[in-house]
Parts: sequence; C-alpha cells; structure tokens
Amino acid sequence: MATGSGIEALDIAEAPACKLRMINHWDNMDGSVERGYAGRSIFFRNGEVLASSPRIRDYARLMASIGLNGIAINNVNVHRLESSLITERLLPDVAAIAELFREYGIRLFLSVNYASPVELGELPTADPVDRRVAEWWMRRAADIYRHIPDFGGFVVKADSENRPGPFTYGRDHADGANMLADALAPYGGLVLWRCFVYNCRQDWRDRTTDRARAAYDHFKPLDGRFRDNVVLQIKNGPMDFQVREPVSPLFGAMERTNQIMEFQITQEYTGQQRHVCYLIPQWKEILDFDTLLKGEGSAVKAIAAGQVHPYTHCGITAVSNVGDDDNWTGHHLAQANLYGYGRLIWNPELAAAEIAEEWTRLTFGADPEALSVVTGLLLESWPIYEQYTSPLGVGWMVKPHVHYGPDVDGYEYSKWGTYHFADCRGIGVDRTQASGTGYTAQYESANAERYERLETCPDELLLFFHHVPYTHRLQSGKTVIQHIYDTHFEGVERLQYWIGRWAELEGKIDADRFGHVSERLKEQLDSAKEWRDVINTYFYRKSGIADERGRVIY
Amino acid sequence: MATGSGIEALDIAEAPACKLRMINHWDNMDGSVERGYAGRSIFFRNGEVLASSPRIRDYARLMASIGLNGIAINNVNVHRLESSLITERLLPDVAAIAELFREYGIRLFLSVNYASPVELGELPTADPVDRRVAEWWMRRAADIYRHIPDFGGFVVKADSENRPGPFTYGRDHADGANMLADALAPYGGLVLWRCFVYNCRQDWRDRTTDRARAAYDHFKPLDGRFRDNVVLQIKNGPMDFQVREPVSPLFGAMERTNQIMEFQITQEYTGQQRHVCYLIPQWKEILDFDTLLKGEGSAVKAIAAGQVHPYTHCGITAVSNVGDDDNWTGHHLAQANLYGYGRLIWNPELAAAEIAEEWTRLTFGADPEALSVVTGLLLESWPIYEQYTSPLGVGWMVKPHVHYGPDVDGYEYSKWGTYHFADCRGIGVDRTQASGTGYTAQYESANAERYERLETCPDELLLFFHHVPYTHRLQSGKTVIQHIYDTHFEGVERLQYWIGRWAELEGKIDADRFGHVSERLKEQLDSAKEWRDVINTYFYRKSGIADERGRVIY
Repeated sequence: MATGSGIEALDIAEAPACKLRMINHWDNMDGSVERGYAGRSIFFRNGEVLASSPRIRDYARLMASIGLNGIAINNVNVHRLESSLITERLLPDVAAIAELFREYGIRLFLSVNYASPVELGELPTADPVDRRVAEWWMRRAADIYRHIPDFGGFVVKADSENRPGPFTYGRDHADGANMLADALAPYGGLVLWRCFVYNCRQDWRDRTTDRARAAYDHFKPLDGRFRDNVVLQIKNGPMDFQVREPVSPLFGAMERTNQIMEFQITQEYTGQQRHVCYLIPQWKEILDFDTLLKGEGSAVKAIAAGQVHPYTHCGITAVSNVGDDDNWTGHHLAQANLYGYGRLIWNPELAAAEIAEEWTRLTFGADPEALSVVTGLLLESWPIYEQYTSPLGVGWMVKPHVHYGPDVDGYEYSKWGTYHFADCRGIGVDRTQASGTGYTAQYESANAERYERLETCPDELLLFFHHVPYTHRLQSGKTVIQHIYDTHFEGVERLQYWIGRWAELEGKIDADRFGHVSERLKEQLDSAKEWRDVINTYFYRKSGIADERGRVIY
Repeated sequence: MATGSGIEALDIAEAPACKLRMINHWDNMDGSVERGYAGRSIFFRNGEVLASSPRIRDYARLMASIGLNGIAINNVNVHRLESSLITERLLPDVAAIAELFREYGIRLFLSVNYASPVELGELPTADPVDRRVAEWWMRRAADIYRHIPDFGGFVVKADSENRPGPFTYGRDHADGANMLADALAPYGGLVLWRCFVYNCRQDWRDRTTDRARAAYDHFKPLDGRFRDNVVLQIKNGPMDFQVREPVSPLFGAMERTNQIMEFQITQEYTGQQRHVCYLIPQWKEILDFDTLLKGEGSAVKAIAAGQVHPYTHCGITAVSNVGDDDNWTGHHLAQANLYGYGRLIWNPELAAAEIAEEWTRLTFGADPEALSVVTGLLLESWPIYEQYTSPLGVGWMVKPHVHYGPDVDGYEYSKWGTYHFADCRGIGVDRTQASGTGYTAQYESANAERYERLETCPDELLLFFHHVPYTHRLQSGKTVIQHIYDTHFEGVERLQYWIGRWAELEGKIDADRFGHVSERLKEQLDSAKEWRDVINTYFYRKSGIADERGRVIY
C-alpha cells in the first residue's frame, strides 16, 4: 500500500527461493562492531548483553518484514569475553534475545571460538578427536538447547586470520566441523563453517602462492566427509568482498556438501557507509553467474536455493550493516542494501531497479522526482564506486587495516596475499594455467577457458586473471591505461552529476534526510577526488604514459 | 679507571662546550612514552607522578655522569592529564623529582600546553595578548617557583602538528613566546620554543609548498623580537630526524635570537632500538657543519656553545631513549647513544670512535675482541642503516605512523609534506632556486650554491635537493639506480658480517647481554632484508632498469 499499489496487491502467495536467509553480526561485547559504520552494537554494551533493549524488537520486525529467518548476533572473531556467550552465566540473556526473535520467525545462532574449552579454562586442549573435547561440546549443546529450544547453531571462523582451529591439532576441517556437528545434531542445530581459510602470513616475494585458490584447495578435497548438518559458508568471491571479484569456484563444486553463500552488506571495502554504494546489482550478478556445473541457467542461484544437489541445508547469509545509529545504517541510503538483501534472497528474480524503486517509495514516498533521483543514484552508485577506485578487478588498492581511501601499494609488500604486481610496463595477477598460479582451473572447463584466454576474459576482471601491459587493448577498444584514466575521471563526474540531481530534492523530501545525505555526498566527493588523483598519478608516474585527453594528473 | 687509564687520568679540569645540556622526555602520565622503545615511563604511571621511584635517582646519577644539566620530564605533546603538572595538585610531586635532580646538578623543565588556561577550564582564551592570559601564566609561574626555586622553564610545542598556539588567536610566535617568557623572567626561567612548525595538512598535489622551508620561513623574520629568556629549539635538520638530512639553515641565521639544537636519541626513524644505529657520527657531522655565517670553522658548534653571537642562553637538547626496561634503552647497544650524547655535547672535539671505545670499555670491559667487535659494529651501524633504508637523503620511505619498516609510497600521497616524487624516469625533490622550491636559498651563499648545483651537491643529499633521472651519475661514478641496488645489498651484507663477528663473542662477554644483542641482531637482519627487497623491488618495477650484477630482485 505504501508503494501505491491497490489492496489487491496484498493477495500474495510466495515461497522464498532460499531456505536459510541469514544475517551475521560482527558485534563484540564491548559494544564495538567490527567493520561497523553505523554506531555501536544494538546487542552488547560494556561486556553485557542488552537483553531488554527495545532496539532489538524493532530490528526483529525489520528483519521479518524482508523475510529473513536467521541471525548470528556476535562477531565471527570470537574473543575472550564472547566465548562466555555459550555458558550458563550468559545463556539466560542470550535466550531472552532468542525468544524475541522467535516471535518474528527468526532463529538465533552464535559465533563460537573453536578453542572455547581452552579459552574458558576448562580443558587443556580443543583437539576435535579428543573425547573430552567432544563431550565438552555436547554438554554445551545441552545447556544451550535447554535455554533456547530452537537454537540455530554455530557460526565458526576456524584456522582463519590467526583464529584457532583444527589445524592447531593436526586435524582437518572435516574433523573439526563434524565434532561440533555431532554435538548439535540431536537438537537439529547446524554448523555454519566458514571457508575463509588462507595463508595470512604469506611472503610477498612468493608468487606461487595464490590466496584466491585457498578456499577451493582447502575444502574441495573434503567433499563427502562433512556431516549433514554442516554447512560450508563461502564468501561470494575468492578474496574478500572487493568491489569486483569473480564468483568463488567452490560454489557447486562439492556435490556432497551443504553450502551457503556469504555476502557483505556492511560496506567495508565499498565506502563504509560514507559513500553511496547500492550493492544489489553486484549480488544479482553473482547469483546469476552460471557455474556450468549442472545443466543450464544460474547454478549459483540454484545452489543457494538447494535445487541442484539434494542439500539438506542451504541458503544465503550476509554481514550486517546495522548499528545503533538512529537510522540503523549510518548513511541513510545504505538502508537500501539491507532492505534489498532480504528482498533479493527471498526472490532472486527481482530486478535491482525494482528493489531500488520499492525501497525508495517506502522510504521517501511517491514524489516522482525523489523517486527518479534516489533510484537513479542508487542504481549507478556501484558502477561509479568501481570507476573511481581499483580498476579492472584488481582490488585492494586501499589503506591497510582501515580499508577506506586509496593506497595503491598499501597491500603490495604485505603478508596478506593481496597484490597487483604493477611495474613500469604493466599490471595484474597472472592466475592462468598457462603461465600463472593456475587458479582458472578451479572453474568448470568453459568458464576456466573464458577466464584463461585474454580474448575472452571479461574486461572488468582482466587484472584479476592476467598481467598485461598498460598498452593492452581491452574488449572495449581502450588501452588499459586509458581505461584507468577515463574511468577515474568519469566516476567523479558522474558523482558530481548525481550530487547536482540530489540538490534538486531540497524541499521535496524532509530536511533532515536531505541534509544528512547531502553531507555524506560531499564527503564522498572529496574522497572520490582523492581516489581519482592518487590512482591516476600513481599509474601516470609508473607507466610514463600521458592521458590522451590531457587532463590534470599530478 | 674502568677504561684502564691510570690514576693520573683523574686529574682533569674541563669546562663543557655547551652551556645547556638537556634531555627531553616524551613521557605521558598514563605511563606511555611517545616514540619510546624501552618500556614504560620512569616518571609516570596511571596518571600519577612516580615521585619516589628509585629509578629516577639512578637516572639522575647516570645523567650527571655524562655531564647533562637539564631535563624536561613530560612529552612536548601535552595532553589533558599533563596540563595539570603546573597546578597545585601535582606540583608537590614534580617538586620532589626536581629536588632529586637538583642533587645531581640538573634543572627540571616542564613541557606545557599553550592552551593551558583553556584546557584547565580557567579562562575562555589562551590569546597571548589578553591581559588575563598573561596574568594567569604569572600566577602559574609564581606557584611553580614556590615549589621549585630553580625551575628551568617551559618547553613549548605550539602551532605544530595540531597543537594549539598563538596562531589560533592571530598572533605570531614572538607574541606567543614572549608572554610566557615575561611570566618566567622574574625567576630566571627559560622558554624553550620549538621551531617544528609546518603545514601538516598539506595537499600532496601542491608542489610549491615545501615543508623543509617552514622553520626558516616562520622564524627568521622574527629575529630580534624575542625576549632574552626565549630560546628557539631547532631540530638538527629541516624535516624530522631522518637518517640523513642537511643541517637546518636556521642555525646561526638569527643574530639576535637564542638558539638550541635538538637531536633525537630515541631511534624513531633509525630502527627503534631493535636495530643498532650508533648516532654519534651523525651528530658529529651536524656539529661540524660549517654554516659559513661568521668567520671560519664550525659555526654550528660555535652556536651551540654560544661563541658566535652574544647569546644569553644556548646549548643542545635531545629526545630521550630511556624507559623502565632493566637496561634503560631496550637495545643494550642503544645505551651508547645516550652515553655518547652526553660526552659529545660536553666536548664536541671527541671523535665518535673515542666515545664508542670509551663506552665499550666501561660496559663490556677490556677484552680486546669485545672491544674490536662492539666498537666496529657501532661505528659502521649508522652507515649500514642508511644503506639498507632510504637512499641519497630522500628519507621517509617508512611505514606511516609507526615509522618502522619500509613503505616507499607510505607518505607519498599524504598530508605530511614528505614526498619523493618517484616516477618511471627519476626521483627526488627539486629544492633548487632555479626550478624548485627555492629552499637552497635559505643557506649562506657558498652552501646555497653547493646544494643548488648538481655537480657539487653531495651524493648523500642528492635526492633531498634534486629530482634526477635514475641514470644520473653520482660523484661516485655510479648511476642513481645502481647506487640504490648496491647499497641495499651491501647494507645487508655488512650487517651479516657484523652478526658473524658478534657470534665470536660468545663466552667472551656475559651470556645475558650476548643473547640479548644476538636476538636483536637477528630481528634487525630480517628487517634489513625486508627493506632491501622492498626498496630494490619498488625501484626495479618503477624504473625497469635491471641490476648490473643480476642479483635477485622481485
């Protein structure tokens, strides 16, 4: 009704495409939110669980309104304090939150520390094949389900970025996940086991190790060894939520293992809710990607919905962009990502534009100019962000740790496995089988061949798969270097255009939100200019090739 | 006697070359030490003054033993907590420390926040020409001298790196310093006014602003306007304690203004007491620099000693490298810098080798091999550090903020005014009058001309003054790029040589110190290799010019 449809529009019978439709919070008990850009946690403060906060009920309603049905309330990096969430001391508070979400059809999950028995000082080991460890987790499961009968299960980041895991004890990830799964199985609980496992102490001199390969290399050989209630949680791309990545080749590649896809709603690498970056078009492309693994059409979408393999459990999850800011998401327009996430995974057939328009009508009303400006800005915002940041799929040219603002070499000589290998002649990561790391071979043959060959590799992923000279001609007809200059100038120009359009809304929408978004757009423009000038200057200085159009580069 | 001299060596009559021989601590009241690499503060802990700590007496003895006679115990960045050091609440504790130092002939100074009247909530302004402000400081001075009759005075970092200062109120630095000086004058106190004033929010795109010019440009026009008890405290170089800089042209350039030179003993940019870097040879070169401003010989040395102009107050100060580590300085060999600092400014005629040998004998005894290895390592350590870090005087290729480890572009697109302008053809900062920022003109004519001309500019400062192609031939006959490769390989090789020599001392010196230094040398070697490989790779990738000797570059 708020969108102006008639009463008959309420006569709907729909079933969601994905069974599990989750949100992952990266909230810590001190009240901070890892990669959070919208204030403090709505769940925790000063080491305590905010069991009676009215914000949580509002949030549950909000989630239910877009069809979400699962939530993990604490950070996957589980520190000392948060390890106690599964103990008798804190379970009553957690249960109070679970009860509230239950009213809205949402199951509660917890992220757990793989070394909990050690962290809590109760056992000398967390070795998954040690009987004492298995029994310890069984007792924990019994405790949890006594408090929360419909508890969803555990989210686990193990052996990842210095977190503990089964590798510590010489066990593999099937051993590690199955032990937890056995503890939860009697109650119907799941283990959502993250596949974000890679060598985060790589030597930048070593060009044979390729972080993009890591998830597939680690997990593919374990296909068939996981319990039915283990679900591998796989990030959409092989790296880490960059503005542009190929789809992870692990999707669909394990025929006998449950999988769930992980998106990132919080804009860690996409402007941190100070830039507008409407991510639904990105997620659409990912869901539409054809893995070619089974039959025709979008296999990823089918996997997410559990239609290809006889999965018991499958679906989509995403990292939350919510905090205790009045408007939930810091940037007002970032709400569209949360709203759109729920809408899209309920019905992946919806177009990004449909979702944008729906959210805009619900948010700003039916004014046609507001509708035109807001949806136009949203729909172009991801392409614009990609234009003025890191080009052609190369990623990572960002300030280390904070992940905001440009630093082209910031990760180039680091341990993180995130390099661009730019020199005075060219740039890009050779991931081909012919001369590179062989990552392309992780894809099904036709996709592998498409990425392997310069002629068929899509422009927007060129530097992810190939190291090419700056003078290489893209399929667009432009050279790589001219593409870099052009997109960086254009990105800023398009942003300036939309800032002008936004200014026309003064008086047409409420002053608060008008002013709020205007302020953020101003900051975005400053940051976009910095990106443009740093990137263009870096590549001009490095290549020595002038801009064909003679624009200002420093 | 400990050096093996006979009893007659004790029959000494010496006068120090410098009147004021100071140490600046950058200690905060929470117990941290800004740019400290030797543990926590010996003066403060958890917001309190450690008035009765036995470490302080030991330290006073140590200082007296090398002839120092002044100390500022708190950080020049004076935060909220430390602003209270000049109030009745904390003055009794400060006075207890002053009393202890007095027994050893050392006067106590305090760093003060220029905005103290505001910070302490007592006045709405800190404007130096506001009568209330002047009277406020007079009352503070009266309070201080009631507690500490021989109080040395204030150290002031004003209008520097976001610290408050007279600029806030549209006043200049003479107005600002004189107001404090008038408050202290009745008691014989000094204002040590730091000249580290520059635009720390520079746009990296702006090549006309030159941070190196800042101190001279700000202060030279004020010559003659400062009170007699104001002393300008000038860092040895125009930038900030890099491994190699020219001497600041401000020394001797103000005929009617007291000056004091500031060194940095704490190894902020020179390996942070994890690398050996014996700095006495650097300081010797600086003190020996001939400004050519008056007559012949080392004018800087003369200025430091007050022999050129009829200065009332002059001398040398330095930032401390001391903390509460058992060995005072973190790295055991870093003690040689503290010891050597005191010895050198007492008698600048001493050779760096003499001081190194003296310290080694006093520390490790008379074993000839220990003497040979320790002094050899110390004396070559600064050249070695320079070899494997930033080349030819360009500086700053260091990880931002932490200042440890390489990051060639770390400061290149920043606001700090610290650039190298490397592109695919060449590198360096053009500071000439002919085509650059004109910084060279701040030197007396013969020095200005020497730096201005490529043919006469010393190799080790070439990139500080000139932007040259990588193929430019140095006076050494090598090209710039080959010099970069050679020095970076050689620096690591020389370090390896000295690590081998150090290993021979096993059993010849005590196991504790042998093991301690061995561990640090191991870390230094790892870090030196990282420097070598990052710097060489960066310039190989950027220039495309191969190493003539075909060594491994990545």
